[in-house]
Amino acid sequence: MQEVLFLNDVKGAVSRLLEGAGYNRTFVLCDDNTAREVLPLVQCEALDGAHVITIAAGDAHKTLDSLAHVWSELGAHGATRRSLLINLGGGVVTDLGGMAASTFKRGIDFINIPTTLLSAVDAAVGGKTGINFNGLKNEIGVFSEAKAVIISTCFLATLPQGEIKSGFAEMLKHGMLESEDEFMRLLDYDLTAADHDQMLALVRTSVQVKQRIVEQDPHEKGLRRALNLGHTVGHAFESFALHRGEPIAHGYAVAWGLVAETVLSHLKRGFPSEHLHRLARHVRDNYGAFHITCDDYQALLNYMHHDKKSVSGEINCSLLRSCGAVETGITVTDDDMRAALDIYRDLMGI
Amino acid sequence: MQEVLFLNDVKGAVSRLLEGAGYNRTFVLCDDNTAREVLPLVQCEALDGAHVITIAAGDAHKTLDSLAHVWSELGAHGATRRSLLINLGGGVVTDLGGMAASTFKRGIDFINIPTTLLSAVDAAVGGKTGINFNGLKNEIGVFSEAKAVIISTCFLATLPQGEIKSGFAEMLKHGMLESEDEFMRLLDYDLTAADHDQMLALVRTSVQVKQRIVEQDPHEKGLRRALNLGHTVGHAFESFALHRGEPIAHGYAVAWGLVAETVLSHLKRGFPSEHLHRLARHVRDNYGAFHITCDDYQALLNYMHHDKKSVSGEINCSLLRSCGAVETGITVTDDDMRAALDIYRDLMGI
Repeated sequence: MQEVLFLNDVKGAVSRLLEGAGYNRTFVLCDDNTAREVLPLVQCEALDGAHVITIAAGDAHKTLDSLAHVWSELGAHGATRRSLLINLGGGVVTDLGGMAASTFKRGIDFINIPTTLLSAVDAAVGGKTGINFNGLKNEIGVFSEAKAVIISTCFLATLPQGEIKSGFAEMLKHGMLESEDEFMRLLDYDLTAADHDQMLALVRTSVQVKQRIVEQDPHEKGLRRALNLGHTVGHAFESFALHRGEPIAHGYAVAWGLVAETVLSHLKRGFPSEHLHRLARHVRDNYGAFHITCDDYQALLNYMHHDKKSVSGEINCSLLRSCGAVETGITVTDDDMRAALDIYRDLMGI
Repeated sequence: MQEVLFLNDVKGAVSRLLEGAGYNRTFVLCDDNTAREVLPLVQCEALDGAHVITIAAGDAHKTLDSLAHVWSELGAHGATRRSLLINLGGGVVTDLGGMAASTFKRGIDFINIPTTLLSAVDAAVGGKTGINFNGLKNEIGVFSEAKAVIISTCFLATLPQGEIKSGFAEMLKHGMLESEDEFMRLLDYDLTAADHDQMLALVRTSVQVKQRIVEQDPHEKGLRRALNLGHTVGHAFESFALHRGEPIAHGYAVAWGLVAETVLSHLKRGFPSEHLHRLARHVRDNYGAFHITCDDYQALLNYMHHDKKSVSGEINCSLLRSCGAVETGITVTDDDMRAALDIYRDLMGI
């Protein structure tokens, strides 16, 4: 079982994890940003002599070239099967570093220290690793769990507000999958407060929701698709925005996708209207609206039909009967989706 | 559990495995040679419409470039998570194809059909996949088991005698790990006979020896190192031969390494002298001798100290007390190794 530590004493956690673990060499993977902003915050005796590997920041560098660079650095600096790689960064670093560690000499241990809210609640836990390839996101990767994940909110101060909101959208998703109580607790949280301790408690619950689902279905054969809630429409929004030259952050796309798919949940599974409206208001207030017109529907539908997780070309969603009651693998017709997008636009006031 | 089929009706086996399995697309990976020589022998209705991917033959092409080529071909021809890759070839094809399948979209099913004796008894079973990287063999890879392995001796007729002997050396190793009876049965087999049925029975036992060990230790933390018998010295011979510009086949290196390590087993663990002499005679008669002088010892020792499986720079061997009784992780001093190489030269008549 993967060890997930929730705490704000990251140095202490690193020291405890390394002590007596018998690693003969420790490596730290950063990107340009985390090497500069975050590495100094975790530098401690246990990391003296660790070799730091740096890749360029951003999803555009989540490539085979970066992966080969990490492999080369590991090899050139004497990594063996008893060495450890610590991934210190956002989702690009934990995904790519996890892949590098899992394939170097057929697998060495790695520890994830997510430095963004999004990677803390999403990428760093659950065993998905990977890189983009031939223009496709996470086209190449393996399922492989980190030996440990250290989740802290003390790095959040280094992040712009938009990054916090991006991660919070995934937390909303987890909250809706969990229970009405958890959903309400999130809606009541003041996103502008920057209360690290309260946030850490919310993050802990959020990660535990994901962990419970992943444990039951590590290789995404069934239940894990619940985590796709909001992402069928979200990914379509993301691709559409990219295509029209106005890219949007993943978390924002998820927030808007979550509204549209909750509309679908209401239409097709009787999800309570009152909760739908509370969600829509929260998203509109905090994320604004993603602007689309009915002229854009066909393009969006095309993206949904070609989603990586679509097996037969049908549009597939995970939908909620209520908070805490999810159904996966529901086929949605084009007409249903158009109706949902109409209502999404109403709710968003566009 | 991995399904391993031993039979000479390969078409029938492929048809049965694919029937009702629900794969939406089938791919076959070959190298230049197997595409020409072996693919026509297995072509059947179940493979109509399969897309054939070809890589250049030989260990020199077990590279990241070839791997990326396979990924690209899979992507370009519509592979999804429900697609299947069939690896038809020797160890390079099954290792690289296994790696490609295990990492494409985080893993699709693959079936191995080994076409050389060496890959049948070694590479195709046991879940090791990989590629060479930065000049190091199998530096990058994952542990990932084929959905099924179809083992047949009907392709052996396409192979030169040297290839058969190369595979047979690994069978000798398995026989010695198994029991005195199995070891004797192999020594009694006439390598020039080309009796496919008798060979299939021997291969079946050999693969089962490996399977039993791998099941107990899939990720090579302990017992699996037993399979390294003969390889500490064998790899050193291989690297040394390569360095002096006279490369030797892996199986031949294993046969010679097996003699040297059986000498060590005799010296350090009391392995019966009579069996050592029978092995040495068999190897000398069938493989000739690998010529070294005492001036070469230091170079050979250097290779052994830098073996991938050496953790602390010490020379590590798996040694036998007798056939069927192995001990792993035994540290061998330079003096022990020099003494063993002296006796190896005596036994080989050089």
